[in-house]
Amino acid sequence: MNYGVAAFPSKKLQDLANSYRKRYDPHYELITPHMTLKGPFEADASTIKDVAAEMQNIAKRQKPFKLHATRVSTFSPVTNTLYFKVEPNAEIAALHEDLHSDFFGGMPKHSFVPHITIGQKLSDTEHADVFAQLKMAGIDHEEVIDRMHLLYQLEDGSWTVYETFRLTGDDQ
Amino acid sequence: MNYGVAAFPSKKLQDLANSYRKRYDPHYELITPHMTLKGPFEADASTIKDVAAEMQNIAKRQKPFKLHATRVSTFSPVTNTLYFKVEPNAEIAALHEDLHSDFFGGMPKHSFVPHITIGQKLSDTEHADVFAQLKMAGIDHEEVIDRMHLLYQLEDGSWTVYETFRLTGDDQ
Repeated sequence: MNYGVAAFPSKKLQDLANSYRKRYDPHYELITPHMTLKGPFEADASTIKDVAAEMQNIAKRQKPFKLHATRVSTFSPVTNTLYFKVEPNAEIAALHEDLHSDFFGGMPKHSFVPHITIGQKLSDTEHADVFAQLKMAGIDHEEVIDRMHLLYQLEDGSWTVYETFRLTGDDQ
Repeated sequence: MNYGVAAFPSKKLQDLANSYRKRYDPHYELITPHMTLKGPFEADASTIKDVAAEMQNIAKRQKPFKLHATRVSTFSPVTNTLYFKVEPNAEIAALHEDLHSDFFGGMPKHSFVPHITIGQKLSDTEHADVFAQLKMAGIDHEEVIDRMHLLYQLEDGSWTVYETFRLTGDDQ
């Protein structure tokens, strides 16, 4: 079974992201707009209780973080993916690192770019057109995220929330 | 903003429900398969913290419950909605009642029929056809649900999980 960890922003930011995703993101129907904190990983139903317990510990160690979306960017030429760039900060980096401890199999190979996807799997031409448009429209939105969600994936590709964890930082 | 409270069953039961919903439920893309515990209600962003706090109290009072889906049924002639009937039991009734206290505006007008929707907004002919088929296919699935989710609705109609609450019954 596939699991993942994500943060869902406020309704306002989700509605804005969806106004683009509706047209430009084929994953629009599978999950609401989110910032991935830990990409999809395999675990079976028995392991997940341990994962949830470890995430509970992380939630006690890690504090709420500022999500500041500052501009529209792209992962091109790696993939034709457009996103709201989220400014990295110490809290986000610490949370991401804690979600990639040895328990979770260690850090990912690629560096972490906090973002909210608004378009993907675009053709080269469409990618260039849409990026030019959305870069002009821009984004400047700031909010505080005080929770993270553990999700699992259904056979049709959609994601269901298993549990939420409030970031309290109580154990710091 | 619209809020609601639901329980999401296991991946197995969700996958089964989705195999029908994909064809027969126009809300298929808006939310994954679920049992509604409290239908949509209005609250603004400031109130929701109080709602979440009250749900935390409820989660301490209420125990995990058995979800036993026993057959395919219909809300016809009221609406052409097909669903997995969930056997009522004391735990489900108590949880539902606690979610409709005076704090939440009291009990709903209609009696509570625990269910997981698998088809809706069908024409009369389609409803009759599909119901005949699915009644034959039937369902007999039992599991324990130990959590409930508070959700809110985005402008496009889709639902995002705000928070999960584990039913512990610790305060009983």
